[in-house]
Amino acid sequence: MCSFSPSRHIQDPASQRLTWNKPPKSVLVIKKIQDASLLQPFKELCVFLTEQKNMIVYVESKVLADPAIAGDESFGAVIQKFCTFREDLDDISNRVDFIICLGGDGTLLYASSLFQESVPPVMAFHLGSLGFLTPFKFDTYQSQVTQIIEGNTAIILRSRLRVRVVKESREKKGIIMTNGDSEGSRKSMQYQVLNEVVVDRGPSSYLSNVDLFLDGHLITTVQGDGVIVSTPTGSTAYAVAAGASMIHPNVPAIMITPICPHSLSFRPIVVPAGVELKIMLSRDARNTAWVSFDGRKRQEICHGDSITITTSCFPVPSICFRDPVNDWFESLSQCLHWNVRKKQNYLSSEEEEF
Amino acid sequence: MCSFSPSRHIQDPASQRLTWNKPPKSVLVIKKIQDASLLQPFKELCVFLTEQKNMIVYVESKVLADPAIAGDESFGAVIQKFCTFREDLDDISNRVDFIICLGGDGTLLYASSLFQESVPPVMAFHLGSLGFLTPFKFDTYQSQVTQIIEGNTAIILRSRLRVRVVKESREKKGIIMTNGDSEGSRKSMQYQVLNEVVVDRGPSSYLSNVDLFLDGHLITTVQGDGVIVSTPTGSTAYAVAAGASMIHPNVPAIMITPICPHSLSFRPIVVPAGVELKIMLSRDARNTAWVSFDGRKRQEICHGDSITITTSCFPVPSICFRDPVNDWFESLSQCLHWNVRKKQNYLSSEEEEF
Amino acid sequence: MCSFSPSRHIQDPASQRLTWNKPPKSVLVIKKIQDASLLQPFKELCVFLTEQKNMIVYVESKVLADPAIAGDESFGAVIQKFCTFREDLDDISNRVDFIICLGGDGTLLYASSLFQESVPPVMAFHLGSLGFLTPFKFDTYQSQVTQIIEGNTAIILRSRLRVRVVKESREKKGIIMTNGDSEGSRKSMQYQVLNEVVVDRGPSSYLSNVDLFLDGHLITTVQGDGVIVSTPTGSTAYAVAAGASMIHPNVPAIMITPICPHSLSFRPIVVPAGVELKIMLSRDARNTAWVSFDGRKRQEICHGDSITITTSCFPVPSICFRDPVNDWFESLSQCLHWNVRKKQNYLSSEEEEF
Amino acid sequence: MCSFSPSRHIQDPASQRLTWNKPPKSVLVIKKIQDASLLQPFKELCVFLTEQKNMIVYVESKVLADPAIAGDESFGAVIQKFCTFREDLDDISNRVDFIICLGGDGTLLYASSLFQESVPPVMAFHLGSLGFLTPFKFDTYQSQVTQIIEGNTAIILRSRLRVRVVKESREKKGIIMTNGDSEGSRKSMQYQVLNEVVVDRGPSSYLSNVDLFLDGHLITTVQGDGVIVSTPTGSTAYAVAAGASMIHPNVPAIMITPICPHSLSFRPIVVPAGVELKIMLSRDARNTAWVSFDGRKRQEICHGDSITITTSCFPVPSICFRDPVNDWFESLSQCLHWNVRKKQNYLSSEEEEF
Repeated sequence: MCSFSPSRHIQDPASQRLTWNKPPKSVLVIKKIQDASLLQPFKELCVFLTEQKNMIVYVESKVLADPAIAGDESFGAVIQKFCTFREDLDDISNRVDFIICLGGDGTLLYASSLFQESVPPVMAFHLGSLGFLTPFKFDTYQSQVTQIIEGNTAIILRSRLRVRVVKESREKKGIIMTNGDSEGSRKSMQYQVLNEVVVDRGPSSYLSNVDLFLDGHLITTVQGDGVIVSTPTGSTAYAVAAGASMIHPNVPAIMITPICPHSLSFRPIVVPAGVELKIMLSRDARNTAWVSFDGRKRQEICHGDSITITTSCFPVPSICFRDPVNDWFESLSQCLHWNVRKKQNYLSSEEEEF
Repeated sequence: MCSFSPSRHIQDPASQRLTWNKPPKSVLVIKKIQDASLLQPFKELCVFLTEQKNMIVYVESKVLADPAIAGDESFGAVIQKFCTFREDLDDISNRVDFIICLGGDGTLLYASSLFQESVPPVMAFHLGSLGFLTPFKFDTYQSQVTQIIEGNTAIILRSRLRVRVVKESREKKGIIMTNGDSEGSRKSMQYQVLNEVVVDRGPSSYLSNVDLFLDGHLITTVQGDGVIVSTPTGSTAYAVAAGASMIHPNVPAIMITPICPHSLSFRPIVVPAGVELKIMLSRDARNTAWVSFDGRKRQEICHGDSITITTSCFPVPSICFRDPVNDWFESLSQCLHWNVRKKQNYLSSEEEEF
Repeated sequence: MCSFSPSRHIQDPASQRLTWNKPPKSVLVIKKIQDASLLQPFKELCVFLTEQKNMIVYVESKVLADPAIAGDESFGAVIQKFCTFREDLDDISNRVDFIICLGGDGTLLYASSLFQESVPPVMAFHLGSLGFLTPFKFDTYQSQVTQIIEGNTAIILRSRLRVRVVKESREKKGIIMTNGDSEGSRKSMQYQVLNEVVVDRGPSSYLSNVDLFLDGHLITTVQGDGVIVSTPTGSTAYAVAAGASMIHPNVPAIMITPICPHSLSFRPIVVPAGVELKIMLSRDARNTAWVSFDGRKRQEICHGDSITITTSCFPVPSICFRDPVNDWFESLSQCLHWNVRKKQNYLSSEEEEF
Repeated sequence: MCSFSPSRHIQDPASQRLTWNKPPKSVLVIKKIQDASLLQPFKELCVFLTEQKNMIVYVESKVLADPAIAGDESFGAVIQKFCTFREDLDDISNRVDFIICLGGDGTLLYASSLFQESVPPVMAFHLGSLGFLTPFKFDTYQSQVTQIIEGNTAIILRSRLRVRVVKESREKKGIIMTNGDSEGSRKSMQYQVLNEVVVDRGPSSYLSNVDLFLDGHLITTVQGDGVIVSTPTGSTAYAVAAGASMIHPNVPAIMITPICPHSLSFRPIVVPAGVELKIMLSRDARNTAWVSFDGRKRQEICHGDSITITTSCFPVPSICFRDPVNDWFESLSQCLHWNVRKKQNYLSSEEEEF
């Protein structure tokens, strides 16, 4: 008798799989720098990809600047086959089919930052203790890389946030605003974040006072140390430390978590992925705020500036070790000790017969 | 170069609208019983629907049993036009085009329980202080009801959980298990819940010890007072009291919140709407647990029994007062005093110049 | 120029020590019943105390009713030397110099319940995993017991709460109220609790609505699953599961913790040990509440009944394994996994050089 | 049969009262600067104290530098009678009998900082919305001040923390460390704090990693944004925003609250007032930390530096508006909206009869 647009299709989170239209030819290898324990795995992996898999390996120039790599003669022949690039100067976004990260959740955040639009599938090795974003162990890297190149692996599409920062021109006051962002104009910059945007009081001990808008409506004012706008992936990073519930990366949502709010009742909230959020200094804020993107590109926000956040059209296809559900619960347990407990009851009860 | 199934379509939560294929003819009116303040609005509304709108009004028999209604001669002519039914005995699920609730969030939970499959659109008046599920004020009911009947109103599809309880036959032990559920068999019952399924220790002061499975995998064991599995709609009900973050009803997700867990690290989690959860007593649980569905149909769960939970195919189309976003934030503020705070800073800082 | 009563003397919590005026002669041994693993340690300990230390051993009659004890012929000679007693029937409060507990935190709660006034020093063995109240390992029990009997051991005086329940006479309504409390009158009962008094909704799914008074003033109304009034010792038991901070047992304070409160802002509070608290049903409460004392003696509270709580004059002198500070932090770590964490940072930061 | 040092005397928190040995002669008036609304009350109060009460009024020089005060001719005669002083240069600690604060909790924190040893009684007016430390309304200041001068008023002794910062000499490295603290030596400084000591990551986005010692034992390592060591008075300031329970100022205790800790299980703890805490950078901390004292004197902490914290011998005698219990609960309600809630139940229950 009545009609409304059809109910959401409810997808099984374990169903998403990676298939290649044609085999990947080029691979970007990202290595955490200044970590000697990664040198040997990095070299082994590059030799394997270059010589056994005949792939073109992209490596960032500064990785090769490490004397332990540049000075290793036995590795010289392989290096010569590398394609190199420099962050913020060379655009490799359309030249890479596949990404391999070595070293910790930070490597995947860094990989994400290199691709402001479409991101190739990423395989991340933890080379130490398990991370939320780095599910693979390096031991059997050969068979695992081979299997992925041959296709049909479980992946999870990790949503990102598209963040646009618009700064008021401040020329009148004789201040020429500059920023180090090559791709941004003087007035507007854009970022893709995988974990979170953080707005906080920065180096100041002044308190932030920022307004939060949703689809154009003022929904609340944040008074406290700051506010975190995170993806579900980011819910287990800074947001969880600030008291948020943990959200599986397959839930299409955005999480808003206050940092040490003045109000006892300022519980974190989760809103649908389709909304547009905007953050500005409150009119009566006596201080500026600072914003950062996945912990990077920290900058000041002044009166009139705005930070607009939507779910990005470009998620990060992150290759699963097992599947999106098992990988996540394994990380909760390993990284956060979620619900680790003493088996024996420590609460008393009459029935225990003392 | 690679492909995976297309990214989720990200829907604007404010976009869902109700339209009627043909005008609604029959309306179920639900009234909280034993509340004298509702009598006059109930009568007025029924007269309006019957006489002005020529609709067939369905009312539960026990509502009419109230002497203040049955004995009101001036209301007698209207009553004669009512269709009446008895809960658990008469099935009205295919006879009602539209539902109007008078009296508090409980009326909408009750309405939900009457429709185990498709639910007609529901308009809920709060007749007192605002509820999460009852956004309409009664003052201007005539124009508001008219507008909805004429179509094109904002609605929100509130997801429900389909819960199947399977009980082990216990005949061997000479116990004949009975339950008051007319629609269920002796071994398996099914419920649709709008807020939450609660598994707790019931009247016992013994502690629950239940296993939680997701898509067949044991993900954790709950030791404490119990566990709440809720819809996003239910996140602002019992779950928020147990410490959960608050989730907008348009997020396709299921929330799992422990009640007074023994483990300091047992933070609530949010999983995708597409998963299947199962709860059973742990093998080493020394006591039974109790389950309830939106606070109703409380029953004991013994070793071998299982509670299986998935997102239902039958959401509740709940008519918005303004739209899904504004209504929700209005409720957070009015019902939960979310982020209500003293304007003046109460934290000290050096820069405040004491 | 001005004066006020002298500042509190601030005591070093590690300074309290046990010394005996004359050597202890009688010892009460408390054993968790229905736990086969305790039989051998129990027998060994009793033989040691009786034959090596020449102490008079008190044992509860029901412990000896266990066939594994009663039927052990080799143990018969020792049993004959025991003094036995029955809970609630025989008063041993002035006959025991020393208490030894075998089996879990519940044994110490039980020991506490046997002594409504002064409590002898208690030494508690955990015989499994460490508890908050049971710091001793059984391995070297002989040397440890000997050392304690010889005096000069660290003890901690664990404060208890004195709880007085006054019930309105309900004879008018033809109901004769009875209770199983031998020491209490029909109208007023008194309890000493070591962990907490819990007021909750009991078997009902109705919600509690209780008023909380402090020194005669109504300070708040509790709406939710209930409220916990705990000692610092009890702060790490049920209260911590309900979200409380953890308080060292040497802090002279009383903790008030709501259980799943409806209000987002109902944070737990800690008040000075010297106040008097009173709990009553709110005038508009539609249901009764239930109260229990260290998980025992559960009973219903009706309109007009009151629960009055003060810090008891009779703490439990609990013998430390090392000292009050080290024992507590050891328990936090072992029992609650307090601040257990992955050594490696899981949060990203720009400076980590990805 | 046994003995241990006598049980703590449990004091009624409402019992402490102020009496004067001889009437107070000199009064320090502290005014929040740069707040025009305070000018008139400040002048009125000073005239009243000088001319009606014949008291010697101490005022800080910078307060008088305000043109609205210095330029007010009608106020000139009163100003001439003032004793003035400069912060950090003139010591007034033994010259003041009584303190009056005008303007917000910050004024009392500032007053506290002026007295590193014994503090005269403080009366604090809030001149706007109620604060935790400023219970008096200005309306009837004359009768209230008179009553206090005449003696026998309720006071609360707010404990302070004595904090000693010891910095390693770094001369070897060619760096001469300087600091602006007139009273401190180059290597060791001491502070009295009324609310809290905060150790955080400062302007860096690096994460803190600090070790926490109690009576010389390492009890835990803090990984996160930082840690707050607060008095009970400070429990309702920054600590409550970071998730702590709230402690009445009469409880002799110290609270330790992590700020956004990485560990899910890092719940705040409360330790006895008599302990000594020490904070140092962890050996493997890759960054420095920053410390501040009641939000002031922010400074960097490097490897080898230590922060030692004990309960001070010099509490702040803070004059109550009513008494320590009522004042506190009034502040909880007014400043933090503690347990403000909607009267109507918002949780559903079967018994509500929908």
